[in-house]
Amino acid sequence: MLLAAAQEFNAHGFHNTTLDEIAKRLNVTKPTVYYYVTNKDEILTETFRAGCGALAEAADEVDRSGLVGLDKLAEFMRRYAELMTTDFVKNVALLEDTCLGPEMRGEIREIKSAIDRRFRTFVEEGIREGAIAECDPKMAAFTIAGALNGIARWYQPDGPLSPCEIAETTVNTLVAGLRAR
Amino acid sequence: MLLAAAQEFNAHGFHNTTLDEIAKRLNVTKPTVYYYVTNKDEILTETFRAGCGALAEAADEVDRSGLVGLDKLAEFMRRYAELMTTDFVKNVALLEDTCLGPEMRGEIREIKSAIDRRFRTFVEEGIREGAIAECDPKMAAFTIAGALNGIARWYQPDGPLSPCEIAETTVNTLVAGLRAR
Repeated sequence: MLLAAAQEFNAHGFHNTTLDEIAKRLNVTKPTVYYYVTNKDEILTETFRAGCGALAEAADEVDRSGLVGLDKLAEFMRRYAELMTTDFVKNVALLEDTCLGPEMRGEIREIKSAIDRRFRTFVEEGIREGAIAECDPKMAAFTIAGALNGIARWYQPDGPLSPCEIAETTVNTLVAGLRAR
Repeated sequence: MLLAAAQEFNAHGFHNTTLDEIAKRLNVTKPTVYYYVTNKDEILTETFRAGCGALAEAADEVDRSGLVGLDKLAEFMRRYAELMTTDFVKNVALLEDTCLGPEMRGEIREIKSAIDRRFRTFVEEGIREGAIAECDPKMAAFTIAGALNGIARWYQPDGPLSPCEIAETTVNTLVAGLRAR
């Protein structure tokens, strides 16, 4: 349901999409949709939560992997980049939160910031371990997230490069830019 | 007028913004707005054109500057990054084109692609001149554009770093990642 919602919102805009259309798209009745969510704002919020949840889970796995230094950051970047090519996370990355009220918008911003902080923490660890050149970890995190989120904007499944190749190429450039010299 | 339109579209969404509101915001009458554009789609298209025009102009200036190799690409990145912190280009970068019909949307995509091709061309030149490491110029251009467009998403005029510092820090990371070793 969240994938269908994200796709409809991106295709026609949040305001032009009704719960009816999302239900029709899923071949279910409107009451079935209402069983899960009370309104459209809630679907949008849940969609953000699930998409960012997948990214946070990747960060958790990398945290438990035993990798250190730049390898740890690179592994998270690779997983993040590949997730950006999946139908669901790609659509979540393209969603706008300007349609939400201030409270829900605040919640979404917090969820997104939490992902940025994972990048920042991994960069800080890499600097302490001497693997990453001295830099502003916040700015480095923004640069990484910007480059990786961009994949959602241009990725086409029928393009010449596989998700794995896209991840590898993008991550290699960023890693070379961060490496201690 | 284009700045006011971009700000209104980003604040309330394209569909929730009327030409009346844009006129009111500018303290002019609706006929005054109609003197310049025939409808809302046209304002949106003109706004994209002007924003991307500013980026293209920066690329033209860098092209005429006599700079070569990585310095040329870095200079364009710096100017592009600084433009992303200006009220107008920041707002243009945040605009969605999903609200437009297929024809105008196609035109906008072409305008955006032209900017991506400038990055690609500068990368290709840098590779030929031996200043940039062998890489896929298209992927490098996407990585650069993603990182720099991201600035529009997080930049706050009251933040701790100046536009110049933001540009310098972001460009340094990207340049280090692209440099021939």
